[in-house]
Amino acid sequence: MLLDVVLTTSALTSQAISGKTLVAIDILRASSTIVTALANGCRAVIPVLTPEEAFELKKRDPDVILGGERKGLRIPGFDKGNSPLEYMSSDIVGRRLVLTTTNGTRLIRKGQEADTLLVGSLLNAQAVAREVLKLKRDTLLACAGTLDRFSLDDFVGAGSIVREIVRFSPDVSLSDIALAAMKVSASGDPVLSLKESFHVRKLMELGFAQDLDYCSRLNLYGVVPRLTEKGIECLEKV
Amino acid sequence: MLLDVVLTTSALTSQAISGKTLVAIDILRASSTIVTALANGCRAVIPVLTPEEAFELKKRDPDVILGGERKGLRIPGFDKGNSPLEYMSSDIVGRRLVLTTTNGTRLIRKGQEADTLLVGSLLNAQAVAREVLKLKRDTLLACAGTLDRFSLDDFVGAGSIVREIVRFSPDVSLSDIALAAMKVSASGDPVLSLKESFHVRKLMELGFAQDLDYCSRLNLYGVVPRLTEKGIECLEKV
Repeated sequence: MLLDVVLTTSALTSQAISGKTLVAIDILRASSTIVTALANGCRAVIPVLTPEEAFELKKRDPDVILGGERKGLRIPGFDKGNSPLEYMSSDIVGRRLVLTTTNGTRLIRKGQEADTLLVGSLLNAQAVAREVLKLKRDTLLACAGTLDRFSLDDFVGAGSIVREIVRFSPDVSLSDIALAAMKVSASGDPVLSLKESFHVRKLMELGFAQDLDYCSRLNLYGVVPRLTEKGIECLEKV
Repeated sequence: MLLDVVLTTSALTSQAISGKTLVAIDILRASSTIVTALANGCRAVIPVLTPEEAFELKKRDPDVILGGERKGLRIPGFDKGNSPLEYMSSDIVGRRLVLTTTNGTRLIRKGQEADTLLVGSLLNAQAVAREVLKLKRDTLLACAGTLDRFSLDDFVGAGSIVREIVRFSPDVSLSDIALAAMKVSASGDPVLSLKESFHVRKLMELGFAQDLDYCSRLNLYGVVPRLTEKGIECLEKV
């Protein structure tokens, strides 16, 4: 089994995806939000590209929750923003979440041709690692990046998942870039690593320091979000 | 001053280069060979793209030395291969070296639109760092990569140069990717880091273990190769 890493959504090609397991990683904050919502009882997350698509779905099913951001902030008319901390309340239990974000949901849409698409974050790194090993396919850890540029937070996230995989199965093959990601994630406290990132400094300016601390927590949840025909569901708790 | 890193030759764009200092990095082995040749008395290195170009130059000036590789091995009819160890002998003193390699010389040709092009390796990381700081421009550390893929050896090389720059001038701005490179280079012994790379395993198979040990030596030389109209020259020893 080969583990490889792609650094931005735009660098992801259909050819690279085909037949593989893809782990979609947008640490700050779409992946962390999806994992948190599903861990806290949300039934499914429907990723959409635009606020218009989201409003359309709400028209058809008024019970859905609309969540997401543009420029980091909640979209006017939406129920919730993109802070994972908003998805720990009981109002999401058993309901579907329609989510649109600047980077993460675009990555998930683009990655949907993969054999299996999982959503990975620091919060569920070990659970995702176990699922990747169970699926026994070459795996692409796909970083969303920020506005199509390399983003340190996603690279650290990818590296943490690589590390968990290698811990369980030391003989997997790593591409050079997967090895680099693992080394970066192992080079210190993830919160500190994240705080140095450009993306993070921007979120801190917007007042999301709490999100950052939360998104840096390793292996808080055992959920593995997986894309199905009904959206992103948590098929089982590991 | 902003430090950024580009991961492969093909990812390098004219727009990204313009007005900047560019440090061309092909640790295994073109950068290391150029640095070694100049440190040992070679007058200038002329990077060319094809063996035909090289033979053409030799016809015009029989005193030039022809060096380089294809698939890692010396080109038939050439004086030397691409092992830096071949460039420590007295026959190169005062002479010009015409060099063609698979990745490195292509990077140098592509990067020649930069305000200043320097050649960086682990062997001269600190000297290059000082020159970058003296030039006071935004700087792009350009990794050659291997056949247009990310290569860990070049990433470690870029990170080592970033680390030397930050040591002298802690307030330079780093892009996320420059920060990641610095962390990877700081995460252990460079020789060990290099040995894990795909590119390195290939060179080891070809019997170039000695090259690897040599190319991993940090700050062996104080030379700063710079591209001029006459080729790559060592304008001064730092």
